[in-house]
Amino acid sequence: MTSVIQLEECRERIRKELDTVVDFWLRYSHDPDHGGFFNCIGRDGKVYDDLKYVWLQGRQVWMYCRLYRTVERFHKPEILEAAKAGGAFLRRFARVSGGCGGDWKCAFCLTRDGKPVKIQRTIFSECFYILAMDELSRVTGDTDMQLEANQMMEQLIYWVQEDASGLGRPQLAGDAPTNNMAVPMMLLCLVHQITEGRGPDVVGKYRKLGCWCVQQILQHIQRNGTAILENVSPEGGELPGCKGRLQNPGHALEAGWFLLQFSAEQSDQVLQRTAINKYLKLPFQDGWDKKHGGLFYFLDVDKHCPTQLEWNMKLWWPHCEALIAFLMAYKQTKNPELLQRFFQVYEYTFSHFPDCQGGEWFGYLTQEGKVALDFKGGPFKGFFHVPRCLYMYLFS
Amino acid sequence: MTSVIQLEECRERIRKELDTVVDFWLRYSHDPDHGGFFNCIGRDGKVYDDLKYVWLQGRQVWMYCRLYRTVERFHKPEILEAAKAGGAFLRRFARVSGGCGGDWKCAFCLTRDGKPVKIQRTIFSECFYILAMDELSRVTGDTDMQLEANQMMEQLIYWVQEDASGLGRPQLAGDAPTNNMAVPMMLLCLVHQITEGRGPDVVGKYRKLGCWCVQQILQHIQRNGTAILENVSPEGGELPGCKGRLQNPGHALEAGWFLLQFSAEQSDQVLQRTAINKYLKLPFQDGWDKKHGGLFYFLDVDKHCPTQLEWNMKLWWPHCEALIAFLMAYKQTKNPELLQRFFQVYEYTFSHFPDCQGGEWFGYLTQEGKVALDFKGGPFKGFFHVPRCLYMYLFS
Repeated sequence: MTSVIQLEECRERIRKELDTVVDFWLRYSHDPDHGGFFNCIGRDGKVYDDLKYVWLQGRQVWMYCRLYRTVERFHKPEILEAAKAGGAFLRRFARVSGGCGGDWKCAFCLTRDGKPVKIQRTIFSECFYILAMDELSRVTGDTDMQLEANQMMEQLIYWVQEDASGLGRPQLAGDAPTNNMAVPMMLLCLVHQITEGRGPDVVGKYRKLGCWCVQQILQHIQRNGTAILENVSPEGGELPGCKGRLQNPGHALEAGWFLLQFSAEQSDQVLQRTAINKYLKLPFQDGWDKKHGGLFYFLDVDKHCPTQLEWNMKLWWPHCEALIAFLMAYKQTKNPELLQRFFQVYEYTFSHFPDCQGGEWFGYLTQEGKVALDFKGGPFKGFFHVPRCLYMYLFS
Repeated sequence: MTSVIQLEECRERIRKELDTVVDFWLRYSHDPDHGGFFNCIGRDGKVYDDLKYVWLQGRQVWMYCRLYRTVERFHKPEILEAAKAGGAFLRRFARVSGGCGGDWKCAFCLTRDGKPVKIQRTIFSECFYILAMDELSRVTGDTDMQLEANQMMEQLIYWVQEDASGLGRPQLAGDAPTNNMAVPMMLLCLVHQITEGRGPDVVGKYRKLGCWCVQQILQHIQRNGTAILENVSPEGGELPGCKGRLQNPGHALEAGWFLLQFSAEQSDQVLQRTAINKYLKLPFQDGWDKKHGGLFYFLDVDKHCPTQLEWNMKLWWPHCEALIAFLMAYKQTKNPELLQRFFQVYEYTFSHFPDCQGGEWFGYLTQEGKVALDFKGGPFKGFFHVPRCLYMYLFS
């Protein structure tokens, strides 16, 4: 009972935090001259680089629309206009035609006025493009935009399931085919986005893909069920070396709540149990720093030192994912142990990441919990993980 | 006078350290089954991944040959055989034919048995391949190998000075042409390698290229001579954003001793002064952590927070470069201020990086100087910076 009261007490803090975060991005990130959003925003709100990262452009459009569409106090013209301007910028500039990806490949990074700077040979820019277009079209009713999202989704599925050569990565004899967890996770996230609240035809069309994604994610349970590994073979076997032993606890926790969401939609209690026992409890158990608190960024399942220089840093987003995951799991099961984990993450997160002075959150702490990089927005940190986590606390 | 005595005292320590380091790699890094060297070697000497990184394969061949060729106590069959086995592995597997780089592009990373895993769209694998082949051919007298090194060098010059499209990077409208300091630095290093001790025909052939490299490096002096920036425009102007403001103090110090070496060869006192004032003193002044000691990895010239997560870490190699640079500058000028800097770096380096128990050095410390990654060899740390620095102290 106390726990439920505690949850209510958190609510007020989280409501205020969400307002502060939305204010921050409304105030500092809009580019009235070229459209789209500034992503690189310093501690005090000053833009320190005007490059525009497509992942973050797409995510910001999505988040604005989601808030506008579902939360009364964010149903403001200012937010709608910003989302539309972001969507227009993406549609005008993100797709880079002429490469081997046909007309569907998106840039990773654009100049302020929309010229492509870098293309990644992965599917993630396209994923966030689709996420943005689907959500924006729900707000505006733009059927062309909806169609574009669906068409790009088809291309994405082709790249993932049929032939990845359009992404431009050369096939090399020593580069073992890999099921990287990010790929089925992102596809599952898109399936959820595209089918949510839609009719049985759309839901039916993507059912098989959703199941395939779940099955691909479940392949990452390794070592006789004692560990989640980030990369496995397409047959679900362990890969050799550092790549095969890599763990990313925040990512596993995110996959966990994707699976919980899917299990709820399908009323699949076996999947729910697997999600909790394997994708929530294991990464938390291995990933939580017993000495300093917080979740490590990367680990090696055999306790070798990871080769990623930032392995022991505490990043904001794994903590956001952990909060979502444990609260969702608690709501579905009412198991108090899961609520206790939630509060443990909550305590660390809210005492370390938010910047009480300048608003928004710091993103990157040392192992000991000191702010190591003090910007609010950067190439991989935008208006997404923090507001999504706060929003899902309040409205899911 | 005290300082000169101190230098003699360091000598004994450095001699022992070099022996320990050579022993470590002789003992743990050789692959008797497939040739080449294991690169990923843990704290205790255990191989934690059997991938073979071409940069590090080439560097290890070079370092073994250099020791074998110039230091009596390393003139041992064991070292020669290891270098030859590394060279044979590179010649057999490093070049990846069939791509857009013709027959000259090298992989970045190979499996244990030599299959390509990854290709970088840069020139650095090829640079270390040439470095290895030139030095190995000096030891073995293999003229075919020498010829191959020279031919690859021609290809490299073409990619850098004429047309980079063979490297496989798409030309994008927003990707501003850049003079990245690593490129002329590496070319200058190769010019030094290829011409050292050779006749006037070879020296003459590369004289113009050497001068071009120096001129390209000098373009990185920016902000009215108050800062070295890592990336500038091909015309020597400042580039916008984080990329343009990036500083890498260790890299600038390395460029510094490359310039000092060149200035000595050419008896160019103006260049010597520039090297010391701009490439040694400025990076040290900005890059030395006044609070915790040691050199930062990355900085932003306008004091924004760098976006590299590892910006405030202390890496072994910038300290190696600083030791070489300040000692070389002192030897050339006898300016005691430079020797004082040397001792300051020496003190930090030898009290933080060497592992007294397991031998060799740790490579990656937190800002506060604690070991953050405890392996001795990894994807970017091999048998190169540490022994080169110790060797140059003793024998240059």
